[in-house]
Amino acid sequence: MATLLRTIRSPADVRALPEADLEALASEIRSVMIDTVSRTGGHLAPSLGTVDLTVALCRVFDFPTDRVVWDVGHQAYAWKMLTGRLDRMETLRRHGGLRPFTFPAESPYDASVGGHAGVALSTALGLAAARDARGGRENIIAVVGDAALTNGIALEALNAVRHTTDRLILVINDNGMSISRNVGAFTRLLARRLSALRYNRVRAAAEAAGHALRLGWLRGAYLRFKGILKSLILRHRAAIFEDLGIRYLGPIDGHDIPTLCEALRSAAEGHEPVALHISTVKGKGFPPAERAPAKWHGVAPWASETRRESEPARPSWSVAFGQHLCELAERDPRVVAVTAAMRDGTGLAEFFRRFPGRAYDVGICEEHALVFAAGLAAAGLRPFVAVYSTFAQRAVDCMMHDVCLPGLPVTLCLDRAGVVGADGPTHHGLFDLALFGALPGLTLRAPTDAAGLVRAMDGALAGDVPAVIRYARGSVPAETLPPAPLPPGDGPVILAVGRAAAWLKPVADRLSLPLVPVDSVKPLPAGLGPDVTRPLVTAEDATVHGGFGAAVAQAVGGPVLCLGWPDDGWVGQGTEAELRADCGLDGEALVRRIGAWLKELPAHG
Amino acid sequence: MATLLRTIRSPADVRALPEADLEALASEIRSVMIDTVSRTGGHLAPSLGTVDLTVALCRVFDFPTDRVVWDVGHQAYAWKMLTGRLDRMETLRRHGGLRPFTFPAESPYDASVGGHAGVALSTALGLAAARDARGGRENIIAVVGDAALTNGIALEALNAVRHTTDRLILVINDNGMSISRNVGAFTRLLARRLSALRYNRVRAAAEAAGHALRLGWLRGAYLRFKGILKSLILRHRAAIFEDLGIRYLGPIDGHDIPTLCEALRSAAEGHEPVALHISTVKGKGFPPAERAPAKWHGVAPWASETRRESEPARPSWSVAFGQHLCELAERDPRVVAVTAAMRDGTGLAEFFRRFPGRAYDVGICEEHALVFAAGLAAAGLRPFVAVYSTFAQRAVDCMMHDVCLPGLPVTLCLDRAGVVGADGPTHHGLFDLALFGALPGLTLRAPTDAAGLVRAMDGALAGDVPAVIRYARGSVPAETLPPAPLPPGDGPVILAVGRAAAWLKPVADRLSLPLVPVDSVKPLPAGLGPDVTRPLVTAEDATVHGGFGAAVAQAVGGPVLCLGWPDDGWVGQGTEAELRADCGLDGEALVRRIGAWLKELPAHG
Repeated sequence: MATLLRTIRSPADVRALPEADLEALASEIRSVMIDTVSRTGGHLAPSLGTVDLTVALCRVFDFPTDRVVWDVGHQAYAWKMLTGRLDRMETLRRHGGLRPFTFPAESPYDASVGGHAGVALSTALGLAAARDARGGRENIIAVVGDAALTNGIALEALNAVRHTTDRLILVINDNGMSISRNVGAFTRLLARRLSALRYNRVRAAAEAAGHALRLGWLRGAYLRFKGILKSLILRHRAAIFEDLGIRYLGPIDGHDIPTLCEALRSAAEGHEPVALHISTVKGKGFPPAERAPAKWHGVAPWASETRRESEPARPSWSVAFGQHLCELAERDPRVVAVTAAMRDGTGLAEFFRRFPGRAYDVGICEEHALVFAAGLAAAGLRPFVAVYSTFAQRAVDCMMHDVCLPGLPVTLCLDRAGVVGADGPTHHGLFDLALFGALPGLTLRAPTDAAGLVRAMDGALAGDVPAVIRYARGSVPAETLPPAPLPPGDGPVILAVGRAAAWLKPVADRLSLPLVPVDSVKPLPAGLGPDVTRPLVTAEDATVHGGFGAAVAQAVGGPVLCLGWPDDGWVGQGTEAELRADCGLDGEALVRRIGAWLKELPAHG
Repeated sequence: MATLLRTIRSPADVRALPEADLEALASEIRSVMIDTVSRTGGHLAPSLGTVDLTVALCRVFDFPTDRVVWDVGHQAYAWKMLTGRLDRMETLRRHGGLRPFTFPAESPYDASVGGHAGVALSTALGLAAARDARGGRENIIAVVGDAALTNGIALEALNAVRHTTDRLILVINDNGMSISRNVGAFTRLLARRLSALRYNRVRAAAEAAGHALRLGWLRGAYLRFKGILKSLILRHRAAIFEDLGIRYLGPIDGHDIPTLCEALRSAAEGHEPVALHISTVKGKGFPPAERAPAKWHGVAPWASETRRESEPARPSWSVAFGQHLCELAERDPRVVAVTAAMRDGTGLAEFFRRFPGRAYDVGICEEHALVFAAGLAAAGLRPFVAVYSTFAQRAVDCMMHDVCLPGLPVTLCLDRAGVVGADGPTHHGLFDLALFGALPGLTLRAPTDAAGLVRAMDGALAGDVPAVIRYARGSVPAETLPPAPLPPGDGPVILAVGRAAAWLKPVADRLSLPLVPVDSVKPLPAGLGPDVTRPLVTAEDATVHGGFGAAVAQAVGGPVLCLGWPDDGWVGQGTEAELRADCGLDGEALVRRIGAWLKELPAHG
């Protein structure tokens, strides 16, 4: 099993292989990848699609002197396997194990953090500009999916290529789909393939016309004409790249390793930036994933020995959100939905089916999503914009300038808020309370249970002002945790917002302290003024800096212990339990920390 | 004087004018605009460039039923004058007066907040989608400068046009320059004008070739050929727009009102989105501004009766920053500068002159700026990225994902942090402490004086980790305010960070309280732990939510009064003194607020 692959310790070993072995190597990589992911779960379909490209890159280039920047590193499992991490693939996405994406701290071969789409070309331009500045000669390659090319950062970078460097290779990995289907005109441009046949047909007609020409001046016109024609047809084929000063190569078969190697060598030899457009099949080599690539984009383990216990009967927060948004849309014709390439992930698939004229998927464009929603709201609609918390970080300025300042009734629904588990630090949604809580003119809610989510959505629709609602990945809690007022008295109280209410419930019970579930960060619950001097413990599924606890500590007059994720270090990957244990937020640690704090308080010592 | 203009109460009055009067109207608008801005200051050159366009828009369309979205509303002074605000132009940019930009709360004619570049097309698409959903017929027009078209949000929107609506007019106001000169390939595409002459020449050759053709099958080939040729030549002319499914019109003279009217009518009649490319002269009609449009982009009042007292001899924070960055660059070859269309505004002009190979202006692309800098840093350089605080809000995710997570030594220098004065709420930099303070792995400094800025820059370069430095608009303070440790004792202390230290100095003197100037928000100054139970007053030139005071309140064990800008309302426009008085941050109010708080404290009552 995998006898060739086992001999590869670094990309240099790929270069040393006989040419004839490359296809077998790719095949072994696929086998090991499928076998591994069946036990670890992971981003299978995208990584299967780039196996041949990865082999070709390692064959042609001299890594890590040459640099490849993977846009969204979940294309990069084969890359990990060929750069000395084969033995650790079983630890993928696990606590303390290999990262789900490229990660420089994990390997000198990884050029960048590959968690958020659209940034690879900008990073590569920085690497190229630095190389040019010191007169280096190494190759810089960016591998970008076709869907990521609709992202604003990628487009800003595309615009900057020719201005920045003469030597850069942009590989466009075109599999014709992002997680959802692709959106927009740049994508259609890529999809439009003027076949060689068609070009040849037109050229034949021009040649024939030339032979028919007899007058000298017309002959001259024809020659100029022929040159223009050819350049125009080629330009038509890839108008954007050539107009941007980037040589366009392709499209070529992204699973044909010899052709890939030839194209990469040709791209490396030139003295101008090159866009190499390759066509790949997501899930390549694994029939179930080829048939249903969206389903196999990111998968849970399916090998029998590691299959998880059956999913709980409770719906996920995403499903609860999507269901209630359908109900709101039925009642109120102003309700529309906007998402950014995450219609399945955010629970909106049903909404898109039932209300196709009222649902907008704008692709991987979180900024446009929010400003577009502002326009919808200005025209009288009531948009709910559903994106993952971590990706909404891109749209903070749009929320401030385009939604909150004009006071438009846009509701930003932050799915995957708090820790998300195996996807790790690029995907945790830990900063949203600080980022959005600072903005005037909005409400910011973090429901503690399913009923709270419904109330928050109803309130946002009724409120007619900018609103943010954050909720976690995974299932809604089994128990209901309705928000409560501060109990009377001077004794210590635990205030826990959103998902943290469920975390603190057993802790409060063990410490015999009252627990006040909180579902609103802005405004803060009533009664938290400077006259409150009793000890308060706050808990939140967010970084402590600038979140709920910070707002409480500012508001009240007494001591406050703020519990949440650290803002002086990163939260890793793993199960929720593992991550809470890492950061002193598991039940035992919380009991200990709260107990110790109360003991040291002057008045309660 | 301005006899025509005085008769215009709304755009309907422009439609009622005799055609022959339009040019005179434009001329009167320019006179009043120059006269007004000579006393108020403001964005003169861009607004002079769009006078004729504004007249033509008001002539052709039925506002406010039709909607025009101005990208960066400082093009919109003529718009304000023709939509009922002529009498208030003298109040422009003043406390309580007309806003510097379009602002929906100011007028029903203003469709959006026009402070940050690049968002008009997204807003217009939202308005158009909402119109389409209810079967409306009104026209939606976006007016976007050529420089803003390189911004990622504008490009995301451009990609989405054809997918979103069949009816939208994008006016590209091409004056060949943004505040700094334009950058990048999309801009060059606009600049490249394939003249009508050239097209006609090629077409004549094709016609002649056709007459020479005698064979029937060749005739057929020729016809197809002619169609292809024409479409390819037109495509070549404006490849991006047509490939994006947008009909391209232009370029036309943006100062020829009849032609503008004709083109706008033609654009409105079609059943496809239209890009109308107009060529304008920034500063048009005012020779000094035509000659030096960058100098006259935004100007202080220059009329003798209102000219401000001569500028203080102290340098601005921007100048101090630029000077020291040049010194660092001389000492350390790794130091490079990155800015986003603000090389003058951020004090980098001298750096660009002295170190042209080490200075990068990426255009209005704050996200690309930061990720590009991450690439530079990953390759061993030490980039300093200088942008205005309010525009850096666009790059929070890039700072988190691309700089802080891999721990790259990029220094983000936030110019115009805190209140900026006349430019108002779109331009204040009040949220940066909350936005960037939440991110792990960075240092966040807010120097109190010029020496502190130098220390912060030196520290960032030596520190080799992600760093943020924020500093204000305007001059460095006259007095030095070196950071100090917390004095011993149990009495109340005022901690004031950055510019607020100068504000609190006289307040502390009057209250006979010790003032501790603070220049670091992350990490917090040493000694602020849970054992500190004395009363603390914090002050910062930022919103109170998630800033310095919040971090202090979380860290210490005693009562904290957090002074800063409100996070439940917006700070308006005006002088620093007016804005401080509005929000209870002037000296008198601060003395009163701190005194009252201390009096109510249990232990100090």
